[in-house]
Amino acid sequence: MNNKPIGIFDSGVGGLTVFKEIMKLLPNESIIYLGDTANLPYGDKSEEIVKNYSIANAKFLLKFEVKVIVIACNTASSVALKYLKEKLSIPIIGVIEPAVKGALFATRNNKIGVIGTHRTIQSEIYKNSLSSINPNLEIISKPCPLFVPLIEENFLEHEATKLIAKEYLSIFQNEKIDTLILGCTHYPLLSSIISEILPGVKLIDSAFTTAKDLYDILYSNNLLASNNTNKFYKFYATDITEKLNLLANRILNLPEENKIKFEKVKI
Amino acid sequence: MNNKPIGIFDSGVGGLTVFKEIMKLLPNESIIYLGDTANLPYGDKSEEIVKNYSIANAKFLLKFEVKVIVIACNTASSVALKYLKEKLSIPIIGVIEPAVKGALFATRNNKIGVIGTHRTIQSEIYKNSLSSINPNLEIISKPCPLFVPLIEENFLEHEATKLIAKEYLSIFQNEKIDTLILGCTHYPLLSSIISEILPGVKLIDSAFTTAKDLYDILYSNNLLASNNTNKFYKFYATDITEKLNLLANRILNLPEENKIKFEKVKI
Repeated sequence: MNNKPIGIFDSGVGGLTVFKEIMKLLPNESIIYLGDTANLPYGDKSEEIVKNYSIANAKFLLKFEVKVIVIACNTASSVALKYLKEKLSIPIIGVIEPAVKGALFATRNNKIGVIGTHRTIQSEIYKNSLSSINPNLEIISKPCPLFVPLIEENFLEHEATKLIAKEYLSIFQNEKIDTLILGCTHYPLLSSIISEILPGVKLIDSAFTTAKDLYDILYSNNLLASNNTNKFYKFYATDITEKLNLLANRILNLPEENKIKFEKVKI
Repeated sequence: MNNKPIGIFDSGVGGLTVFKEIMKLLPNESIIYLGDTANLPYGDKSEEIVKNYSIANAKFLLKFEVKVIVIACNTASSVALKYLKEKLSIPIIGVIEPAVKGALFATRNNKIGVIGTHRTIQSEIYKNSLSSINPNLEIISKPCPLFVPLIEENFLEHEATKLIAKEYLSIFQNEKIDTLILGCTHYPLLSSIISEILPGVKLIDSAFTTAKDLYDILYSNNLLASNNTNKFYKFYATDITEKLNLLANRILNLPEENKIKFEKVKI
Protein backbone atom coordinates (compact mmCIF):
# COMPACT_ATOMS: atom_id res chain seq x y z
CA MET A 1 0.00 0.00 0.00
CA ASN A 2 1.23 3.45 -0.87
CA ASN A 3 -0.75 6.67 -0.51
CA LYS A 4 1.66 8.92 -2.38
CA PRO A 5 0.14 10.63 -5.39
CA ILE A 6 0.16 9.56 -9.03
CA GLY A 7 1.80 12.15 -11.31
CA ILE A 8 0.37 12.86 -14.77
CA PHE A 9 1.72 15.26 -17.34
CA ASP A 10 0.58 16.42 -20.76
CA SER A 11 1.25 19.43 -22.97
CA GLY A 12 -2.21 20.73 -22.14
CA VAL A 13 -5.62 19.49 -21.10
CA GLY A 14 -5.97 16.55 -23.51
CA GLY A 15 -4.42 14.31 -20.86
CA LEU A 16 -7.42 14.97 -18.66
CA THR A 17 -9.16 12.18 -20.60
CA VAL A 18 -6.52 9.94 -19.02
CA PHE A 19 -6.97 11.57 -15.62
CA LYS A 20 -10.71 10.93 -15.89
CA GLU A 21 -10.30 7.22 -16.58
CA ILE A 22 -7.74 6.84 -13.76
CA MET A 23 -10.04 8.67 -11.36
CA LYS A 24 -12.86 6.27 -12.24
CA LEU A 25 -10.80 3.09 -12.11
CA LEU A 26 -8.67 4.02 -9.06
CA PRO A 27 -10.90 6.12 -6.81
CA ASN A 28 -8.56 5.87 -3.78
CA GLU A 29 -5.61 7.49 -5.54
CA SER A 30 -4.37 11.06 -5.13
CA ILE A 31 -3.39 12.60 -8.46
CA ILE A 32 -1.22 15.55 -9.45
CA TYR A 33 -1.81 16.74 -13.00
CA LEU A 34 0.60 19.04 -14.83
CA GLY A 35 -0.30 20.66 -18.16
CA ASP A 36 2.70 22.29 -19.83
CA THR A 37 0.44 24.88 -21.44
CA ALA A 38 3.20 27.47 -21.87
CA ASN A 39 4.73 25.14 -24.44
CA LEU A 40 1.72 23.52 -26.06
CA PRO A 41 1.14 22.00 -28.51
CA TYR A 42 3.87 19.36 -28.54
CA GLY A 43 2.51 17.72 -31.70
CA ASP A 44 4.08 20.23 -34.08
CA LYS A 45 7.49 20.46 -32.40
CA SER A 46 10.78 18.60 -32.88
CA GLU A 47 11.81 15.53 -30.88
CA GLU A 48 14.60 17.37 -29.08
CA ILE A 49 12.33 20.13 -27.81
CA VAL A 50 9.62 17.68 -26.71
CA LYS A 51 12.22 15.61 -24.84
CA ASN A 52 13.47 18.67 -22.96
CA TYR A 53 9.94 19.68 -21.99
CA SER A 54 9.16 16.13 -20.82
CA ILE A 55 12.17 16.03 -18.54
CA ALA A 56 11.21 19.37 -16.99
CA ASN A 57 7.67 18.10 -16.43
CA ALA A 58 8.86 14.89 -14.76
CA LYS A 59 11.20 16.85 -12.47
CA PHE A 60 8.33 19.05 -11.37
CA LEU A 61 6.17 16.03 -10.49
CA LEU A 62 8.99 14.37 -8.58
CA LYS A 63 9.00 17.29 -6.13
CA PHE A 64 5.67 15.93 -4.90
CA GLU A 65 7.15 12.45 -4.37
CA VAL A 66 4.84 10.87 -6.91
CA LYS A 67 4.97 7.07 -6.88
CA VAL A 68 4.46 6.73 -10.64
CA ILE A 69 4.42 9.09 -13.63
CA VAL A 70 1.88 8.80 -16.44
CA ILE A 71 2.86 10.58 -19.65
CA ALA A 72 -0.67 11.39 -20.79
CA CYS A 73 0.48 12.76 -24.13
CA ASN A 74 1.16 10.72 -27.24
CA THR A 75 3.87 12.98 -28.57
CA ALA A 76 5.80 13.01 -25.29
CA SER A 77 5.26 9.26 -24.81
CA SER A 78 6.68 8.51 -28.23
CA VAL A 79 9.71 10.72 -27.73
CA ALA A 80 10.61 10.68 -24.03
CA LEU A 81 9.27 7.49 -22.38
CA LYS A 82 12.42 5.43 -22.82
CA TYR A 83 14.66 8.26 -21.65
CA LEU A 84 12.61 8.92 -18.53
CA LYS A 85 12.47 5.20 -17.72
CA GLU A 86 16.26 5.06 -17.81
CA LYS A 87 16.68 8.19 -15.68
CA LEU A 88 14.08 7.66 -12.98
CA SER A 89 13.66 4.94 -10.41
CA ILE A 90 9.84 5.05 -10.23
CA PRO A 91 7.59 3.37 -12.81
CA ILE A 92 6.79 5.50 -15.90
CA ILE A 93 3.83 4.76 -18.15
CA GLY A 94 3.13 6.25 -21.55
CA VAL A 95 -0.10 6.08 -23.51
CA ILE A 96 1.40 4.21 -26.48
CA GLU A 97 2.05 0.72 -25.08
CA PRO A 98 -1.38 0.33 -23.48
CA ALA A 99 -3.10 1.29 -26.73
CA VAL A 100 -0.86 -1.07 -28.71
CA LYS A 101 -1.78 -3.95 -26.42
CA GLY A 102 -5.44 -2.99 -26.65
CA ALA A 103 -5.33 -3.01 -30.45
CA LEU A 104 -3.54 -6.35 -30.59
CA PHE A 105 -6.25 -7.91 -28.42
CA ALA A 106 -9.06 -6.29 -30.42
CA THR A 107 -8.17 -6.98 -34.05
CA ARG A 108 -9.52 -10.05 -35.82
CA ASN A 109 -8.49 -9.31 -39.41
CA ASN A 110 -5.02 -7.95 -38.48
CA LYS A 111 -5.75 -4.59 -40.15
CA ILE A 112 -5.22 -1.78 -37.68
CA GLY A 113 -5.56 1.95 -38.27
CA VAL A 114 -3.76 4.66 -36.30
CA ILE A 115 -4.67 8.35 -36.09
CA GLY A 116 -2.72 11.09 -34.30
CA THR A 117 -0.93 14.41 -34.68
CA HIS A 118 1.72 14.95 -37.36
CA ARG A 119 4.49 14.32 -34.83
CA THR A 120 3.01 11.06 -33.51
CA ILE A 121 2.33 9.62 -36.96
CA GLN A 122 5.72 10.69 -38.34
CA SER A 123 7.45 9.02 -35.40
CA GLU A 124 5.88 5.70 -36.53
CA ILE A 125 5.83 4.70 -32.88
CA TYR A 126 2.52 2.83 -33.10
CA LYS A 127 3.44 1.18 -36.37
CA ASN A 128 6.81 0.02 -35.06
CA SER A 129 5.43 -1.13 -31.71
CA LEU A 130 2.62 -3.11 -33.34
CA SER A 131 4.88 -4.67 -35.99
CA SER A 132 7.52 -5.68 -33.48
CA ILE A 133 4.92 -7.81 -31.69
CA ASN A 134 3.10 -9.10 -34.75
CA PRO A 135 4.90 -8.65 -38.10
CA ASN A 136 1.83 -9.91 -39.98
CA LEU A 137 -0.27 -6.88 -39.13
CA GLU A 138 -1.26 -4.40 -41.79
CA ILE A 139 -1.04 -0.94 -40.26
CA ILE A 140 -2.48 2.18 -41.90
CA SER A 141 -1.61 5.54 -40.32
CA LYS A 142 -3.15 8.95 -40.92
CA PRO A 143 -2.34 12.27 -39.23
CA CYS A 144 -5.48 14.21 -38.23
CA PRO A 145 -3.98 17.52 -37.09
CA LEU A 146 -7.23 19.50 -37.21
CA PHE A 147 -9.00 17.29 -34.66
CA VAL A 148 -7.34 18.92 -31.64
CA PRO A 149 -8.24 22.53 -32.53
CA LEU A 150 -11.77 21.46 -33.52
CA ILE A 151 -12.22 19.73 -30.16
CA GLU A 152 -10.70 22.63 -28.24
CA GLU A 153 -13.06 25.05 -29.99
CA ASN A 154 -16.04 22.84 -29.11
CA PHE A 155 -16.89 22.01 -32.73
CA LEU A 156 -17.56 18.44 -31.57
CA GLU A 157 -20.87 17.96 -33.35
CA HIS A 158 -20.31 20.51 -36.11
CA GLU A 159 -20.91 19.72 -39.78
CA ALA A 160 -17.41 21.02 -40.60
CA THR A 161 -15.88 18.53 -38.15
CA LYS A 162 -17.83 15.70 -39.81
CA LEU A 163 -16.60 16.78 -43.27
CA ILE A 164 -13.00 16.94 -42.08
CA ALA A 165 -13.33 13.60 -40.25
CA LYS A 166 -14.81 11.97 -43.36
CA GLU A 167 -11.87 13.17 -45.41
CA TYR A 168 -9.27 12.09 -42.86
CA LEU A 169 -10.87 8.69 -42.26
CA SER A 170 -11.79 7.73 -45.84
CA ILE A 171 -8.51 5.82 -46.16
CA PHE A 172 -9.69 3.44 -43.41
CA GLN A 173 -12.98 2.75 -45.17
CA ASN A 174 -11.07 1.71 -48.28
CA GLU A 175 -8.61 -0.42 -46.34
CA LYS A 176 -11.30 -2.17 -44.27
CA ILE A 177 -9.54 -2.00 -40.91
CA ASP A 178 -11.39 -3.54 -37.93
CA THR A 179 -9.53 -1.62 -35.19
CA LEU A 180 -8.53 2.04 -34.91
CA ILE A 181 -6.10 3.43 -32.35
CA LEU A 182 -7.09 6.93 -31.24
CA GLY A 183 -3.48 8.01 -30.90
CA CYS A 184 -4.11 11.37 -29.25
CA THR A 185 -5.62 11.96 -25.84
CA HIS A 186 -8.12 14.46 -27.27
CA TYR A 187 -9.62 12.07 -29.77
CA PRO A 188 -11.96 10.08 -27.50
CA LEU A 189 -14.11 13.22 -27.50
CA LEU A 190 -14.77 12.57 -31.21
CA SER A 191 -15.57 8.87 -30.73
CA SER A 192 -19.19 9.18 -31.81
CA ILE A 193 -18.36 11.00 -35.08
CA ILE A 194 -15.58 8.52 -35.82
CA SER A 195 -17.90 5.56 -35.15
CA GLU A 196 -20.51 7.04 -37.48
CA ILE A 197 -17.95 7.16 -40.29
CA LEU A 198 -16.36 3.80 -39.46
CA PRO A 199 -19.25 1.66 -38.17
CA GLY A 200 -18.16 -1.66 -36.68
CA VAL A 201 -14.55 -0.57 -36.23
CA LYS A 202 -13.31 -0.99 -32.66
CA LEU A 203 -11.91 2.26 -31.32
CA ILE A 204 -8.94 1.91 -28.98
CA ASP A 205 -9.10 4.77 -26.52
CA SER A 206 -5.63 5.21 -25.02
CA ALA A 207 -7.05 7.01 -21.97
CA PHE A 208 -8.95 3.90 -20.96
CA THR A 209 -6.20 1.40 -21.82
CA THR A 210 -3.61 3.49 -19.96
CA ALA A 211 -5.73 3.58 -16.80
CA LYS A 212 -6.02 -0.21 -16.98
CA ASP A 213 -2.25 -0.61 -17.37
CA LEU A 214 -1.63 1.78 -14.51
CA TYR A 215 -3.87 -0.35 -12.31
CA ASP A 216 -1.86 -3.45 -13.22
CA ILE A 217 1.47 -1.77 -12.50
CA LEU A 218 0.37 -0.34 -9.15
CA TYR A 219 -1.12 -3.69 -8.17
CA SER A 220 1.91 -5.77 -9.13
CA ASN A 221 4.30 -3.34 -7.39
CA ASN A 222 2.12 -3.18 -4.29
CA LEU A 223 1.68 0.56 -4.81
CA LEU A 224 -2.11 0.85 -4.72
CA ALA A 225 -3.47 3.39 -2.25
CA SER A 226 -5.48 2.23 0.73
CA ASN A 227 -8.93 3.62 1.39
CA ASN A 228 -7.52 7.09 1.46
CA THR A 229 -9.39 9.77 3.42
CA ASN A 230 -6.74 12.37 2.58
CA LYS A 231 -7.08 11.76 -1.15
CA PHE A 232 -6.56 14.90 -3.26
CA TYR A 233 -6.47 16.06 -6.87
CA LYS A 234 -4.24 18.98 -7.87
CA PHE A 235 -4.05 20.64 -11.28
CA TYR A 236 -1.03 22.68 -12.28
CA ALA A 237 -0.27 24.42 -15.55
CA THR A 238 2.71 26.40 -16.80
CA ASP A 239 0.42 29.04 -18.28
CA ILE A 240 -3.16 29.91 -17.43
CA THR A 241 -5.68 31.41 -19.84
CA GLU A 242 -9.43 31.85 -19.59
CA LYS A 243 -9.89 29.06 -22.09
CA LEU A 244 -7.86 26.57 -20.04
CA ASN A 245 -10.26 26.02 -17.14
CA LEU A 246 -13.26 26.19 -19.46
CA LEU A 247 -11.85 23.49 -21.69
CA ALA A 248 -10.64 21.37 -18.76
CA ASN A 249 -14.09 21.29 -17.19
CA ARG A 250 -15.68 20.56 -20.53
CA ILE A 251 -13.43 17.52 -20.93
CA LEU A 252 -13.96 16.29 -17.36
CA ASN A 253 -17.70 16.98 -17.50
CA LEU A 254 -17.97 17.02 -13.70
CA PRO A 255 -20.92 18.40 -11.74
CA GLU A 256 -20.78 22.15 -10.95
CA GLU A 257 -19.61 21.66 -7.34
CA ASN A 258 -16.61 19.60 -8.51
CA LYS A 259 -15.35 22.04 -11.16
CA ILE A 260 -11.56 22.14 -11.22
CA LYS A 261 -9.20 25.09 -11.42
CA PHE A 262 -5.59 25.09 -12.58
CA GLU A 263 -2.86 26.71 -10.54
CA LYS A 264 0.05 28.36 -12.32
CA VAL A 265 3.57 27.03 -11.76
CA LYS A 266 7.04 27.61 -13.12
CA ILE A 267 8.94 24.47 -14.04
CA MET B 1 20.88 55.53 -46.52
CA ASN B 2 21.39 52.47 -44.40
CA ASN B 3 22.05 48.95 -45.68
CA LYS B 4 21.67 47.18 -42.36
CA PRO B 5 18.95 44.53 -42.36
CA ILE B 6 15.33 44.80 -41.30
CA GLY B 7 14.43 42.37 -38.48
CA ILE B 8 11.09 40.62 -38.45
CA PHE B 9 9.78 38.22 -35.83
CA ASP B 10 6.66 36.14 -35.45
CA SER B 11 5.67 33.08 -33.45
CA GLY B 12 5.83 31.01 -36.62
CA VAL B 13 5.46 31.40 -40.36
CA GLY B 14 2.33 33.58 -40.44
CA GLY B 15 4.56 36.65 -40.40
CA LEU B 16 5.91 35.61 -43.79
CA THR B 17 2.85 37.33 -45.28
CA VAL B 18 4.39 40.52 -43.86
CA PHE B 19 7.86 39.54 -45.12
CA LYS B 20 6.38 39.02 -48.58
CA GLU B 21 4.81 42.48 -48.74
CA ILE B 22 8.00 44.12 -47.45
CA MET B 23 10.07 42.23 -50.01
CA LYS B 24 7.78 43.49 -52.78
CA LEU B 25 7.59 47.09 -51.59
CA LEU B 26 11.25 47.44 -50.51
CA PRO B 27 13.28 45.29 -52.89
CA ASN B 28 16.64 46.79 -51.83
CA GLU B 29 16.32 45.76 -48.21
CA SER B 30 18.05 42.85 -46.49
CA ILE B 31 15.71 41.04 -44.12
CA ILE B 32 16.25 38.70 -41.19
CA TYR B 33 13.18 36.71 -40.25
CA LEU B 34 12.83 34.87 -36.94
CA GLY B 35 10.00 32.42 -36.27
CA ASP B 36 9.77 31.41 -32.61
CA THR B 37 8.41 28.04 -33.59
CA ALA B 38 9.52 26.31 -30.38
CA ASN B 39 6.94 28.40 -28.56
CA LEU B 40 4.14 28.74 -31.09
CA PRO B 41 1.30 29.51 -31.10
CA TYR B 42 1.30 32.76 -29.12
CA GLY B 43 -2.44 33.27 -29.61
CA ASP B 44 -3.48 30.89 -26.85
CA LYS B 45 -0.90 32.00 -24.25
CA SER B 46 -0.94 34.57 -21.47
CA GLU B 47 0.33 38.15 -21.85
CA GLU B 48 3.28 37.58 -19.53
CA ILE B 49 4.59 34.62 -21.49
CA VAL B 50 4.14 36.35 -24.85
CA LYS B 51 6.00 39.40 -23.54
CA ASN B 52 8.94 37.28 -22.42
CA TYR B 53 9.13 35.52 -25.78
CA SER B 54 8.97 38.85 -27.63
CA ILE B 55 11.88 40.26 -25.67
CA ALA B 56 13.97 37.18 -26.42
CA ASN B 57 13.12 37.46 -30.12
CA ALA B 58 14.08 41.14 -30.26
CA LYS B 59 17.39 40.45 -28.50
CA PHE B 60 18.21 37.78 -31.07
CA LEU B 61 17.55 40.17 -33.97
CA LEU B 62 19.62 42.93 -32.39
CA LYS B 63 22.68 40.68 -32.61
CA PHE B 64 22.50 41.26 -36.38
CA GLU B 65 22.41 45.05 -35.93
CA VAL B 66 18.97 45.33 -37.49
CA LYS B 67 17.95 48.95 -38.13
CA VAL B 68 14.27 48.35 -37.38
CA ILE B 69 12.19 45.54 -35.91
CA VAL B 70 8.82 44.51 -37.31
CA ILE B 71 6.66 42.47 -34.94
CA ALA B 72 4.85 40.46 -37.60
CA CYS B 73 2.50 38.85 -35.11
CA ASN B 74 -0.73 40.33 -33.84
CA THR B 75 -0.53 38.73 -30.43
CA ALA B 76 3.02 39.92 -29.80
CA SER B 77 2.24 43.37 -31.23
CA SER B 78 -0.70 43.78 -28.90
CA VAL B 79 1.24 42.69 -25.84
CA ALA B 80 4.87 43.72 -26.32
CA LEU B 81 5.10 46.65 -28.76
CA LYS B 82 5.00 49.41 -26.16
CA TYR B 83 7.51 47.63 -23.93
CA LEU B 84 9.98 47.05 -26.76
CA LYS B 85 9.63 50.66 -27.93
CA GLU B 86 10.58 51.85 -24.45
CA LYS B 87 13.52 49.49 -24.14
CA LEU B 88 15.12 49.76 -27.58
CA SER B 89 16.59 52.73 -29.42
CA ILE B 90 15.69 51.55 -32.95
CA PRO B 91 12.20 51.94 -34.47
CA ILE B 92 9.77 49.11 -33.69
CA ILE B 93 6.66 48.50 -35.76
CA GLY B 94 3.78 46.22 -34.91
CA VAL B 95 1.02 45.05 -37.22
CA ILE B 96 -1.81 46.66 -35.21
CA GLU B 97 -1.34 50.39 -35.83
CA PRO B 98 -0.95 50.10 -39.60
CA ALA B 99 -4.15 48.04 -39.84
CA VAL B 100 -5.99 50.48 -37.58
CA LYS B 101 -4.98 53.39 -39.81
CA GLY B 102 -5.96 51.40 -42.89
CA ALA B 103 -9.41 50.66 -41.47
CA LEU B 104 -10.00 54.30 -40.45
CA PHE B 105 -9.22 55.41 -44.01
CA ALA B 106 -11.38 52.69 -45.54
CA THR B 107 -14.65 52.86 -43.62
CA ARG B 108 -17.51 54.98 -44.86
CA ASN B 109 -20.30 53.88 -42.53
CA ASN B 110 -18.09 53.78 -39.40
CA LYS B 111 -18.87 50.10 -38.81
CA ILE B 112 -15.66 48.09 -38.61
CA GLY B 113 -15.23 44.38 -37.95
CA VAL B 114 -12.15 42.77 -36.43
CA ILE B 115 -11.18 39.10 -36.56
CA GLY B 116 -8.19 37.45 -34.85
CA THR B 117 -7.09 34.78 -32.39
CA HIS B 118 -8.65 34.48 -28.92
CA ARG B 119 -5.73 36.38 -27.40
CA THR B 120 -5.85 39.29 -29.87
CA ILE B 121 -9.61 39.74 -29.61
CA GLN B 122 -9.61 39.43 -25.80
CA SER B 123 -6.90 42.08 -25.59
CA GLU B 124 -9.33 44.53 -27.31
CA ILE B 125 -6.28 46.18 -28.82
CA TYR B 126 -7.96 46.93 -32.16
CA LYS B 127 -11.16 48.10 -30.52
CA ASN B 128 -9.32 50.41 -28.14
CA SER B 129 -6.96 51.76 -30.80
CA LEU B 130 -9.81 52.47 -33.21
CA SER B 131 -12.05 54.04 -30.54
CA SER B 132 -9.29 56.26 -29.20
CA ILE B 133 -8.99 57.88 -32.63
CA ASN B 134 -12.68 57.93 -33.50
CA PRO B 135 -15.08 57.37 -30.60
CA ASN B 136 -18.05 57.27 -33.00
CA LEU B 137 -17.03 54.00 -34.60
CA GLU B 138 -19.05 50.87 -34.08
CA ILE B 139 -16.60 48.00 -33.72
CA ILE B 140 -17.62 44.35 -33.81
CA SER B 141 -14.98 41.75 -32.90
CA LYS B 142 -14.99 38.00 -33.38
CA PRO B 143 -12.27 35.46 -32.55
CA CYS B 144 -11.70 32.95 -35.37
CA PRO B 145 -9.27 30.51 -33.71
CA LEU B 146 -9.75 27.70 -36.24
CA PHE B 147 -8.55 29.78 -39.19
CA VAL B 148 -4.85 29.34 -38.39
CA PRO B 149 -4.89 25.54 -38.17
CA LEU B 150 -7.11 25.32 -41.27
CA ILE B 151 -4.65 27.50 -43.20
CA GLU B 152 -1.64 25.61 -41.88
CA GLU B 153 -3.22 22.31 -42.95
CA ASN B 154 -3.89 23.71 -46.43
CA PHE B 155 -7.67 23.49 -46.11
CA LEU B 156 -7.83 26.89 -47.85
CA GLU B 157 -10.55 26.00 -50.37
CA HIS B 158 -12.18 23.24 -48.36
CA GLU B 159 -15.93 23.07 -47.81
CA ALA B 160 -15.32 22.70 -44.05
CA THR B 161 -13.35 25.96 -44.02
CA LYS B 162 -16.24 27.69 -45.80
CA LEU B 163 -18.73 26.34 -43.25
CA ILE B 164 -16.59 27.48 -40.34
CA ALA B 165 -15.95 30.88 -41.96
CA LYS B 166 -19.69 31.34 -42.57
CA GLU B 167 -20.37 30.64 -38.92
CA TYR B 168 -17.61 32.92 -37.65
CA LEU B 169 -18.48 35.77 -40.01
CA SER B 170 -22.30 35.68 -39.81
CA ILE B 171 -22.20 38.35 -37.09
CA PHE B 172 -20.70 40.78 -39.60
CA GLN B 173 -23.45 40.14 -42.14
CA ASN B 174 -26.04 41.03 -39.52
CA GLU B 175 -24.17 44.14 -38.39
CA LYS B 176 -23.53 45.42 -41.93
CA ILE B 177 -19.89 46.44 -41.47
CA ASP B 178 -18.14 47.95 -44.51
CA THR B 179 -14.56 47.23 -43.38
CA LEU B 180 -12.99 44.14 -41.80
CA ILE B 181 -9.56 44.05 -40.19
CA LEU B 182 -7.81 40.71 -40.75
CA GLY B 183 -6.18 40.79 -37.34
CA CYS B 184 -3.89 37.80 -37.81
CA THR B 185 -1.02 37.52 -40.26
CA HIS B 186 -2.34 34.19 -41.55
CA TYR B 187 -5.74 35.48 -42.53
CA PRO B 188 -4.88 37.15 -45.87
CA LEU B 189 -4.61 33.58 -47.19
CA LEU B 190 -8.38 33.26 -46.62
CA SER B 191 -9.23 36.58 -48.30
CA SER B 192 -11.15 35.02 -51.17
CA ILE B 193 -13.39 32.91 -48.90
CA ILE B 194 -13.99 35.88 -46.61
CA SER B 195 -14.87 38.12 -49.56
CA GLU B 196 -17.34 35.50 -50.85
CA ILE B 197 -19.15 35.56 -47.50
CA LEU B 198 -18.89 39.34 -47.02
CA PRO B 199 -19.11 40.77 -50.56
CA GLY B 200 -18.38 44.49 -50.76
CA VAL B 201 -16.64 44.59 -47.37
CA LYS B 202 -13.12 46.07 -47.58
CA LEU B 203 -10.58 43.68 -46.09
CA ILE B 204 -7.70 45.34 -44.25
CA ASP B 205 -4.67 43.11 -44.67
CA SER B 206 -2.18 44.00 -41.95
CA ALA B 207 0.72 42.52 -43.92
CA PHE B 208 0.22 45.09 -46.65
CA THR B 209 -0.49 48.05 -44.36
CA THR B 210 2.53 47.19 -42.21
CA ALA B 211 4.86 47.14 -45.23
CA LYS B 212 3.54 50.58 -46.21
CA ASP B 213 4.13 51.97 -42.71
CA LEU B 214 7.61 50.46 -42.64
CA TYR B 215 8.38 52.25 -45.88
CA ASP B 216 7.25 55.57 -44.37
CA ILE B 217 9.32 55.08 -41.25
CA LEU B 218 12.48 54.09 -43.09
CA TYR B 219 12.00 57.00 -45.49
CA SER B 220 11.40 59.62 -42.83
CA ASN B 221 14.36 58.40 -40.75
CA ASN B 222 16.62 58.24 -43.78
CA LEU B 223 17.07 54.51 -43.21
CA LEU B 224 16.17 53.16 -46.66
CA ALA B 225 18.77 50.88 -48.22
CA SER B 226 20.61 51.99 -51.33
CA ASN B 227 20.65 49.83 -54.42
CA ASN B 228 22.10 46.99 -52.45
CA THR B 229 24.13 44.36 -54.29
CA ASN B 230 24.82 42.52 -51.01
CA LYS B 231 21.14 42.24 -50.18
CA PHE B 232 20.23 39.03 -48.35
CA TYR B 233 17.28 37.24 -46.78
CA LYS B 234 17.82 34.96 -43.79
CA PHE B 235 15.24 32.76 -42.11
CA TYR B 236 15.74 31.51 -38.55
CA ALA B 237 13.45 29.43 -36.37
CA THR B 238 13.72 28.20 -32.81
CA ASP B 239 12.46 24.77 -33.85
CA ILE B 240 12.48 23.09 -37.24
CA THR B 241 9.99 20.49 -38.41
CA GLU B 242 9.28 19.06 -41.83
CA LYS B 243 6.07 21.04 -41.94
CA LEU B 244 7.80 24.37 -41.32
CA ASN B 245 9.63 24.76 -44.63
CA LEU B 246 6.70 23.28 -46.54
CA LEU B 247 4.28 25.77 -45.04
CA ALA B 248 6.72 28.68 -45.39
CA ASN B 249 7.15 28.07 -49.10
CA ARG B 250 3.43 27.62 -49.55
CA ILE B 251 2.85 31.05 -47.98
CA LEU B 252 5.62 32.76 -49.96
CA ASN B 253 4.63 31.01 -53.18
CA LEU B 254 8.05 31.66 -54.74
CA PRO B 255 9.40 29.88 -57.84
CA GLU B 256 11.23 26.59 -57.23
CA GLU B 257 14.73 28.11 -57.50
CA ASN B 258 13.93 30.67 -54.77
CA LYS B 259 12.56 28.23 -52.20
CA ILE B 260 13.59 29.20 -48.69
CA LYS B 261 14.93 27.10 -45.83
CA PHE B 262 14.87 27.89 -42.14
CA GLU B 263 17.97 27.56 -40.01
CA LYS B 264 17.64 26.49 -36.39
CA VAL B 265 18.78 28.86 -33.64
CA LYS B 266 18.68 29.06 -29.87
CA ILE B 267 17.47 32.36 -28.47
